[in-house]
This record gives sequence, C-alpha cells and structure tokens, in this order.
Amino acid sequence: MKNQTYRMTMLYDFYGDLMTERQKEFYDLYYNEDLSLAEIAENYGITRQGVRDIIIRGEAMLQNMEEKTGLIKRHQLIQDALEKVDEGLSKIQALNHEKLENAELQNLCEELSGIIQGLGGE
Amino acid sequence: MKNQTYRMTMLYDFYGDLMTERQKEFYDLYYNEDLSLAEIAENYGITRQGVRDIIIRGEAMLQNMEEKTGLIKRHQLIQDALEKVDEGLSKIQALNHEKLENAELQNLCEELSGIIQGLGGE
Repeated sequence: MKNQTYRMTMLYDFYGDLMTERQKEFYDLYYNEDLSLAEIAENYGITRQGVRDIIIRGEAMLQNMEEKTGLIKRHQLIQDALEKVDEGLSKIQALNHEKLENAELQNLCEELSGIIQGLGGE
Repeated sequence: MKNQTYRMTMLYDFYGDLMTERQKEFYDLYYNEDLSLAEIAENYGITRQGVRDIIIRGEAMLQNMEEKTGLIKRHQLIQDALEKVDEGLSKIQALNHEKLENAELQNLCEELSGIIQGLGGE
C-alpha cells in the first residue's frame, strides 16, 4: 500500500474528514507515523489483517470520492495553471530588469507572485 | 428551498455525482427545469411529500460533504486570489500602455490573463 503514499496524502487531504475516527487513526499511524500493520495491530490488540482491512476500507472510500467527484483532478489543473502564471510573472520581471527598469512594474509583479505563492498551501 | 439556488448549484457541481440517480433526477427537475414539487410528484406518480423528502435528503448529503471537507470554501479562496491576480495583470497592462509601451510585456500579460480566464469554467 505504501508505494502510493503521495496519492494517498492528496486523497486524505481532500476527503480524509469523511473517514471514520478509527480509519483516520490507523491511516495516520500507518502513513504519517510510519508504523507497520503488525505494530498497529499489537498496539490495539487486534489482528494485522484487521488493521489492514480498516485501512483498505478507508482508502477505498477516498478513491471512490475522487472517482465520483474528480475534485483533486480539477484542483491540479488550477495548480498547473497557477504555476504557468507564476513563471510568466518571472519572465515579466526579467524583462523589466533587463530593459524597462520600472519600479512600479516590479512591485506589481512581486505582489502578484506573492498572491500565487500564498496559495501553495491551499 | 429554492431561495438557496446559487448555493445548491455550487454544491451540486462539486458533489452532485455522489447523489443517487433518483436524487439527481428530482434535483435536476426542481432546480434546473424549474418544475414544482407537485408537478414532479404527478409525473412520477408519488406524493409531493415523497418528492420533497428525496430532494431534501440529497441536499443534506451535499451540505454534509461541504461541511466535512470544506472543498468549495477552499476553491473559492483560490478563485478570489485568481481574480486579484487578473486585476493586477490589468494594472500592468495599463502601466505598459501609458508609460512603457513594450510589445513583449503586452504579449506576456495577455497570455497570463488568458490562462486565468481559461480557468473560469473550472
């Protein structure tokens, strides 16, 4: 399961609050705290298979949410576009630096880059 | 219910594919085709209250999805930021038009505005 950690992190970020408390707990221990299935099982006094089932059920729900809604895909299209816009602003700044040397333009570009980079955490 | 049409449209856009077929059908007739509860009831041979219950159950699910995940709220923060960036690009273009008159800068701004406006449908 862990070879899909990046994908799972995205899914959890978007839909994690739809998991049950137990699913969240095990998910967190397995993916974030990096405990093994056997370690979680021992801590909770249940079988390794039991832990595995709970995590897999949670993951299936997350995957199903994305399959149905496509909201991560939509979000990534926006992030890709934002990246292009930020690159474009860098080009404008380079142009300004090389040829135009306008302080107001520089300020505007910095402001807009700031807005875009502020979205990084979204 | 219909006084919340805008909100419902956003919720449906984001989470509508999680509704049952019947919920989607009635939701569509009520909000998009603007049929009354009584008209839908007549067409389907069920009670007005039955139609109402199905629509309300679907709406409650949509609202619950947003309460739990906050994905529309997150999306709107990004849209607000994009609007600010687009306004900033207009300012850069105005500055260019008034003072700098640089064709490359103009092209870059148009390209970036195009990217942002292309996201409008997302």
